[in-house]
Amino acid sequence: MKVGVRVMPKKDVLDSQGRAVEKTLKHHGKQLLGCRVGKFIELEIDAKDKEEALRKAQEITEFVLYNPLIESYELELQE
Amino acid sequence: MKVGVRVMPKKDVLDSQGRAVEKTLKHHGKQLLGCRVGKFIELEIDAKDKEEALRKAQEITEFVLYNPLIESYELELQE
Repeated sequence: MKVGVRVMPKKDVLDSQGRAVEKTLKHHGKQLLGCRVGKFIELEIDAKDKEEALRKAQEITEFVLYNPLIESYELELQE
Repeated sequence: MKVGVRVMPKKDVLDSQGRAVEKTLKHHGKQLLGCRVGKFIELEIDAKDKEEALRKAQEITEFVLYNPLIESYELELQE
């Protein structure tokens, strides 16, 4: 089963990648109100049902995929 | 209007970050069938309607956010 994990920098953390993208675009005359850059991880998990897949994905995410000090995450089941 | 851009490594491209995550998890005894690591970018765009927002997001993505040789992308309107 596939689970997507979206890891984004927290609102109050400086997002240097996002700032860089904004700056580049403005420099090229493109309008942008805001930009934040995070990660997207697609996990393929062996699980009996959706609940088990999400539980395992959460465990993996909290174990190794995100830094709770500066990031937040969301899980989404895929197809 | 907010548009999410998901940029993932193409299927036939070696995804070194994904491999690293897989290896770490297996080393710690966690089961995983597969893992791919990409980017997620949240764009805040000034637009009259959804079509305009998506069109601008596509333009920005192809201009600066993804490398067509090794990545593919998907856009999604956010609420």
